[in-house]
Amino acid sequence: MHMDKVRVAVAGASGYAGGEVLRLLLAHPSVEIGALTAGSNAGETLGSLQPHLIPLADRVLVETSLETLAGHDVVFLALPHGQSGPLAAQLGDDVVVIDCGADFRLDDAAVWEKFYGSPHAGTWPYGLPELPGQRDVLAGAKRVAVPGCYPTVSTLTLAPAVAAGLIEPDVVVVAASGTSGAGKAAKTNLLGSEVMGNVSAYGVGGVHRHTPEITQNLGRLTDAPIKVSFTPLLVPMPRGILATCSAPLTAPLTAAEAYDVYVKAYADEPFVHVLPAGQWPQTKSVVGSNAIHLQVTVDEAAGRLVAVGAVDNLAKGTAGAAVQCLNLALGFDETTGLSAVGVAP
Amino acid sequence: MHMDKVRVAVAGASGYAGGEVLRLLLAHPSVEIGALTAGSNAGETLGSLQPHLIPLADRVLVETSLETLAGHDVVFLALPHGQSGPLAAQLGDDVVVIDCGADFRLDDAAVWEKFYGSPHAGTWPYGLPELPGQRDVLAGAKRVAVPGCYPTVSTLTLAPAVAAGLIEPDVVVVAASGTSGAGKAAKTNLLGSEVMGNVSAYGVGGVHRHTPEITQNLGRLTDAPIKVSFTPLLVPMPRGILATCSAPLTAPLTAAEAYDVYVKAYADEPFVHVLPAGQWPQTKSVVGSNAIHLQVTVDEAAGRLVAVGAVDNLAKGTAGAAVQCLNLALGFDETTGLSAVGVAP
Amino acid sequence: MHMDKVRVAVAGASGYAGGEVLRLLLAHPSVEIGALTAGSNAGETLGSLQPHLIPLADRVLVETSLETLAGHDVVFLALPHGQSGPLAAQLGDDVVVIDCGADFRLDDAAVWEKFYGSPHAGTWPYGLPELPGQRDVLAGAKRVAVPGCYPTVSTLTLAPAVAAGLIEPDVVVVAASGTSGAGKAAKTNLLGSEVMGNVSAYGVGGVHRHTPEITQNLGRLTDAPIKVSFTPLLVPMPRGILATCSAPLTAPLTAAEAYDVYVKAYADEPFVHVLPAGQWPQTKSVVGSNAIHLQVTVDEAAGRLVAVGAVDNLAKGTAGAAVQCLNLALGFDETTGLSAVGVAP
Amino acid sequence: MHMDKVRVAVAGASGYAGGEVLRLLLAHPSVEIGALTAGSNAGETLGSLQPHLIPLADRVLVETSLETLAGHDVVFLALPHGQSGPLAAQLGDDVVVIDCGADFRLDDAAVWEKFYGSPHAGTWPYGLPELPGQRDVLAGAKRVAVPGCYPTVSTLTLAPAVAAGLIEPDVVVVAASGTSGAGKAAKTNLLGSEVMGNVSAYGVGGVHRHTPEITQNLGRLTDAPIKVSFTPLLVPMPRGILATCSAPLTAPLTAAEAYDVYVKAYADEPFVHVLPAGQWPQTKSVVGSNAIHLQVTVDEAAGRLVAVGAVDNLAKGTAGAAVQCLNLALGFDETTGLSAVGVAP
Repeated sequence: MHMDKVRVAVAGASGYAGGEVLRLLLAHPSVEIGALTAGSNAGETLGSLQPHLIPLADRVLVETSLETLAGHDVVFLALPHGQSGPLAAQLGDDVVVIDCGADFRLDDAAVWEKFYGSPHAGTWPYGLPELPGQRDVLAGAKRVAVPGCYPTVSTLTLAPAVAAGLIEPDVVVVAASGTSGAGKAAKTNLLGSEVMGNVSAYGVGGVHRHTPEITQNLGRLTDAPIKVSFTPLLVPMPRGILATCSAPLTAPLTAAEAYDVYVKAYADEPFVHVLPAGQWPQTKSVVGSNAIHLQVTVDEAAGRLVAVGAVDNLAKGTAGAAVQCLNLALGFDETTGLSAVGVAP
Repeated sequence: MHMDKVRVAVAGASGYAGGEVLRLLLAHPSVEIGALTAGSNAGETLGSLQPHLIPLADRVLVETSLETLAGHDVVFLALPHGQSGPLAAQLGDDVVVIDCGADFRLDDAAVWEKFYGSPHAGTWPYGLPELPGQRDVLAGAKRVAVPGCYPTVSTLTLAPAVAAGLIEPDVVVVAASGTSGAGKAAKTNLLGSEVMGNVSAYGVGGVHRHTPEITQNLGRLTDAPIKVSFTPLLVPMPRGILATCSAPLTAPLTAAEAYDVYVKAYADEPFVHVLPAGQWPQTKSVVGSNAIHLQVTVDEAAGRLVAVGAVDNLAKGTAGAAVQCLNLALGFDETTGLSAVGVAP
Repeated sequence: MHMDKVRVAVAGASGYAGGEVLRLLLAHPSVEIGALTAGSNAGETLGSLQPHLIPLADRVLVETSLETLAGHDVVFLALPHGQSGPLAAQLGDDVVVIDCGADFRLDDAAVWEKFYGSPHAGTWPYGLPELPGQRDVLAGAKRVAVPGCYPTVSTLTLAPAVAAGLIEPDVVVVAASGTSGAGKAAKTNLLGSEVMGNVSAYGVGGVHRHTPEITQNLGRLTDAPIKVSFTPLLVPMPRGILATCSAPLTAPLTAAEAYDVYVKAYADEPFVHVLPAGQWPQTKSVVGSNAIHLQVTVDEAAGRLVAVGAVDNLAKGTAGAAVQCLNLALGFDETTGLSAVGVAP
Repeated sequence: MHMDKVRVAVAGASGYAGGEVLRLLLAHPSVEIGALTAGSNAGETLGSLQPHLIPLADRVLVETSLETLAGHDVVFLALPHGQSGPLAAQLGDDVVVIDCGADFRLDDAAVWEKFYGSPHAGTWPYGLPELPGQRDVLAGAKRVAVPGCYPTVSTLTLAPAVAAGLIEPDVVVVAASGTSGAGKAAKTNLLGSEVMGNVSAYGVGGVHRHTPEITQNLGRLTDAPIKVSFTPLLVPMPRGILATCSAPLTAPLTAAEAYDVYVKAYADEPFVHVLPAGQWPQTKSVVGSNAIHLQVTVDEAAGRLVAVGAVDNLAKGTAGAAVQCLNLALGFDETTGLSAVGVAP
């Protein structure tokens, strides 16, 4: 049986998230790429801004507007936080809208306003299919909120331990991210001269905006109120996040027992790979792929479970998840157009 | 009509070239991956050595030998220089053998022996389909010598100018390469601590082994004896080569005229992209892809044509070319399993 | 009054620690550099191995032995762990011996043997002058055990909080290190191709050898048994460590109160800089310098104090501390030959 | 005899060149650091912008103006090109003014206007003491134009060959630079996400502004009109330039003969180091230092002399040269406050 291609628009095509959505869509057999929109870059060719996307190099970016986004089956929004809300409200209910921004991720309006400083736009189905029951929510969904990159890796790295009650609801996450997570807007502190040869911490003390999202995700897996200490680090690489996560054990546990819980939890997941015991994740293995690599152990002396996860912040951390959700929303095979194989070295 | 998959072995699967061949073959619809062989790493799982190749993680590497390579339709050799010769001599004529090493690239035995210091193993069809007439040579070939990474980019960057007689046969190439070109063997000068924050020149003065290969390639395009001054640089990135090539003009020429020659020369090439005038190549745009990006101009004051090309040394520079040649040798569409889209940023 | 220069030998001059000791000694006005020794590199010039040390380029490395080290006032040992013990036992009591290795750092022989797998060589005065009372121990000392790089930054980042009883004795340290901390021996996993664009965790679960040293240091500051969860990360830069440290608060505390404790604790320290409130450390600021930069805050929701420290693992983390201890041991001004100014960007 | 410290102001203290001037001045025994000025950053502390300069962290930047610069013995100008001219015209003749910008480097007003697009401000003594006779010009000078970073390394790498008539006046320079050479202004193409893992060419075809400066310098060494083909590359590191320079030989020459010419030419230079034969320069060896490392050979097949030089673009390439000129202008020892030792690895 023949299936017509779905026509897809990408709003924010000049940024890193938009570019990665396009890179993945170019490999998706059931997608036809329609309008590419931008803000200040409207009028330029995509090739001048995203020279790696050769097949689309001659496409001219148009203004992000209801008019330019009209007439598509699917609209990806890869816009600065706060811009998706007003725009999405005007897109018809028949269009599938997949938002790579933060606007519709949080349940709690008060928490949203505290962390983002603007009115809450609402809550959409959360695009992390690996959470229990979430595939049912995403199947046929017309709206999807793609998770943040840090929440994706932090949640999947801790979820089995939280769900199985192995750890106290008091977790510490230190996540080292490549610079593309900070976006493509020109800022002095993100210059190559500043970030190369340098590691820094930022958003320390629970103030990073992804903190409540991690808390919300883990909170769905346990009845106890959960405390999350989250510290992001900026490290000198373009892509990738490595999250080091730990929490006190609720009861004595061996590393082998913890490992077994993780292996079972993710046995059927196409993109979650618990590495062989003793092999620890590295970000390079997942660059360009939709995979997350995980490992877990127990520190007996410290009385803690320690788990480490690695994702590509732009792929599984953003655009890959977006395409995975597209597949679920439209009924394609979930892995269509996505790869679990990274580009290394 | 159904086409059975061809069964492919990869000798040297633990190295960078072998790993990249496997990464590309995993996306090739007509290939079944058979034996994976190694030297000192035989007995280990591929996952422990190439953790990005998740679908093959449990495969155990076997010794490189006639026995382990038997029973395949195609054998890729990704071995240290000098090892392909003796092995290939024993592989049957019915097997397609694609050598990523240097053993069969040079025509001239004396030149081979001068630069490699060992007896010449012979000369195979040269796997650079973009050279005039070369696709005919490669169609149905049973043996292919994949070009070196520096010769690939240097040749394609200069070929239109040489073939059109725009420049004197006296070229200067300075090519900056990522470190994977130096291989995966542990050496102090290739440690991260040494190469990060560092640029160095090596093989200066015409002694790098790729010099005669560049000379041979360009020499096919002109009747005049050609002189090549080649200097490779090691730069702090894992992948990519940027070649800056120049030569004296034979006659007054405008930048627009030079550009026109390049655009026409490569108009039908699926993987050669002459960028829009004024946009210069960067290696990041071609990472993981089989594309080469080119640009050319004229320096009137210096009286020289200057052209710049960028490739991924492991992809179009090695493994991508190898798969492209596989496609030609077996009659698949030349671009099967290959992408012109890079992974950026 | 004239003070003759002290004559100094450096054992292990071809490695990173030895090279950094020499770089600093070249700027020390009261030192004359004597024998430079090495293992397998003996017989080579220093210039061929450490080309940045131009004034010593023609020096020839000699074998590390009692004979070559004889006749010096001070001997720096920058040797692989386990080699300092036997050698130091034979050096006379009149010679000042400063060991950059681990052999003499730990008090507890059983802990040493558990983590290092060899007999305990003994315990020397610990070269971290910023610990309470430690300057008295180091003044005039004939033997000094220079701290490990991770323990230096972890201890100084947590010490004020532990000593003031602000936090529970249950700390979590995630420390991101540049690659020079792993030494100059050629290993595949330390190749530039592997580490660039990559972050990985290693020694996870309390098994890294610096864990007991951190525990020992912090244990000196509190009566309670202290638990340390320590995870090191390898990040793509040559130098620097950023340690993110946290622990549960013992009682409600504001960020300002925590900051005040840190400022007071280090008010008189020449190399410890608590940054202005709100400014977080970055490793680049301390490259090449003997400084440590610190910042602290309170995460109220998580109920934790979070402190971050940055050092150059080779300078304050190893060779800078060694020279600082030389100054204390010989009665020079503690800051002689050392700088608090980093090389940035 | 006692010499009072000279009082020095730095205009443009928030940028990379200004920061490096300050880093070096902090180690200069005869300098007292006075006013620190900036443009849009005026009013901020230096510590918030240059956190590595701890001893000056509390200094507040003031507006760049005649008033703030008054009352100093020396004024360093580290301003965007075009800003030094108008300002310098108003500074008194008794003040020593050392300009790190381009405004006063070129002799030829027409060339200036062609490359910089603004009126020519004049020509000052050129701050490259290693050029023949130049120390006499700089001794006691009240005005100094510090050379550009590319011209410094290109000139010193080629000068002995040009002066000795070894090569035709037709040189090719390809110079790979770290990103700090492009300054600290926030631009998308200089983001870490863009430059890491990437090499690109820019200013190709003789249009880079440093081209006429190289031509001018080399032209002083020969009677023949000289042609310079100059291509700069941007490579992923913060500091350093490696220049690969070549030209046709005028007559047969051995590598040993060429080497001998270079060794003799620089025998008395404190900061120019011709490496032992066979050892090639790398940028890391000169990071933070005022040294330039050189090597030369002959490519017989190509008929060219090939020389390679490495400098730190911010140190010997800008701020180090500026301090060296300060020393010459004021009669200090030329090497005061400067080091030939790099920070490596």
